[in-house]
Amino acid sequence: MTEPLDVAGLQRRLAEFAAARNWQPYHTPKNLVAALSVEASELVEIFQWLTPEESGRVMDDPDSAARVTDEVADVLAYLLQLCEVLGIDVLAALDAKIDRNERRFPAP
Amino acid sequence: MTEPLDVAGLQRRLAEFAAARNWQPYHTPKNLVAALSVEASELVEIFQWLTPEESGRVMDDPDSAARVTDEVADVLAYLLQLCEVLGIDVLAALDAKIDRNERRFPAP
Amino acid sequence: MTEPLDVAGLQRRLAEFAAARNWQPYHTPKNLVAALSVEASELVEIFQWLTPEESGRVMDDPDSAARVTDEVADVLAYLLQLCEVLGIDVLAALDAKIDRNERRFPAP
Amino acid sequence: MTEPLDVAGLQRRLAEFAAARNWQPYHTPKNLVAALSVEASELVEIFQWLTPEESGRVMDDPDSAARVTDEVADVLAYLLQLCEVLGIDVLAALDAKIDRNERRFPAP
Repeated sequence: MTEPLDVAGLQRRLAEFAAARNWQPYHTPKNLVAALSVEASELVEIFQWLTPEESGRVMDDPDSAARVTDEVADVLAYLLQLCEVLGIDVLAALDAKIDRNERRFPAP
Repeated sequence: MTEPLDVAGLQRRLAEFAAARNWQPYHTPKNLVAALSVEASELVEIFQWLTPEESGRVMDDPDSAARVTDEVADVLAYLLQLCEVLGIDVLAALDAKIDRNERRFPAP
Repeated sequence: MTEPLDVAGLQRRLAEFAAARNWQPYHTPKNLVAALSVEASELVEIFQWLTPEESGRVMDDPDSAARVTDEVADVLAYLLQLCEVLGIDVLAALDAKIDRNERRFPAP
Repeated sequence: MTEPLDVAGLQRRLAEFAAARNWQPYHTPKNLVAALSVEASELVEIFQWLTPEESGRVMDDPDSAARVTDEVADVLAYLLQLCEVLGIDVLAALDAKIDRNERRFPAP
C-alpha cells in the first residue's frame, strides 16, 4: 500500500492519479511545461515583495511555510509528470548536469 | 566517490558545489525561486511555438532532446537547492500533496 | 480630472497610486520584474489546459474574457512601473526593436 | 512613412510584421501568452542574483541597460500582439483596473 518515498514511487502515484481521472489528454509536454512554469511563479509570488532577509525567514511563519511547501510540491509534481511523459530520468539528468558544471565552473 | 542517485545525494552534491564557489550569499530563497522560474521558462521557450502534437515528439530530435533534458536538470537543481536552504523535505511534501489531491479530486 | 488614455498618462496615474500608498520602497526593479513575470504567468494559467482552438475562443465567455482583460492590465501596469523606475521609454524601445527585427528577419 | 509612436501604431506595425512573414498561424493566444511569460522571465534573469540596491543601478551599465531595454520591448511586443488577437483595448483595460484598485486599496 505505502509506496517508498522515492522519485520513481511518486512518479508512479502521479501517473495513476492522472490516469484514474482521464487527465492524460491534457498532459501534453507543452501543457505540462506551462503548468510547471505557473507553479514556479506561484512560488515567486510568495517572495516578490520580501527583502532578501525576510525571504530567509519565510519558514518561521506556519502559514507561509505551508504555502511554500505546497508550491514546492506542485513544482515537483509537474516536473516528474513531464519527465514521465518524455521518458527522461530526471535524477540522471541532474547528475550529468552537475558533472558538466564542475568542468564549466572549476572550484577555485 | 560515487554518490547514490537519489534526491538526498544530489542535494548534497549541489550544496558542496555552491559552497566550494562561495555562492551561498546569492542563494537566498528569493533568488533561488527567481532562478527556478527562469529555468522553467527556458523549458517553455522550447515548446512555445509547437503544436500539441509536435510537443509530443520533442525527444525524437537529439538536439531538442538534449536541450529539454538539460533544462529539466536545471529546474530540479534549483528546486533542490531551495528546499535545502528552507529545510523542506520535497519528497514528503509531494507525497502529502498527492494525499490531499486524492481527497480533493476523488476518482470517478 | 480625466487623464488622456495614453501610456504617459497611465504611467503617471500608476506612480501617483504607488506614492499615495508609500509603496515605492517595494518597487525596486528586481521586485517589479518578479511581479511582472508573476502576472504573465497568471495569464498562462488561464490558457494552460486549452487546445489552440479553445484558446482562440477565450473571449467568447464573459467570465474568462474579464479574467484575461484583468491580467493583461496587470502585466501592463508592472511593465509601465518598471519603465518609470528605470527611465525607459517603452514605446521608443519597442519601435527600435521592430526596426532591428525588420533587418534581422527580412520579409520574404 | 513614420507611424506615430503610440500603442495603436506599434500594434499595427507588429501585425504587419507578422503577416508579412506568415507567422499568424503560430500566434494563437495560448502561444502568445507563453511567449510573453518567456520574455518576462528573460527580464527576471537579468536581475536574479542582484541585491535590491544593485538592481536599482542596472541602467548605469550600458550593456545591461541595452539588455533590459530590449527585453522590455519584447514584453510589450507580445502583450500588444496578444491584445490585437483577442480584441482587447489594453490602455482601457489598465485604466479600468486602476479605477478598481483605487476602490480596493483606498489611499490612507
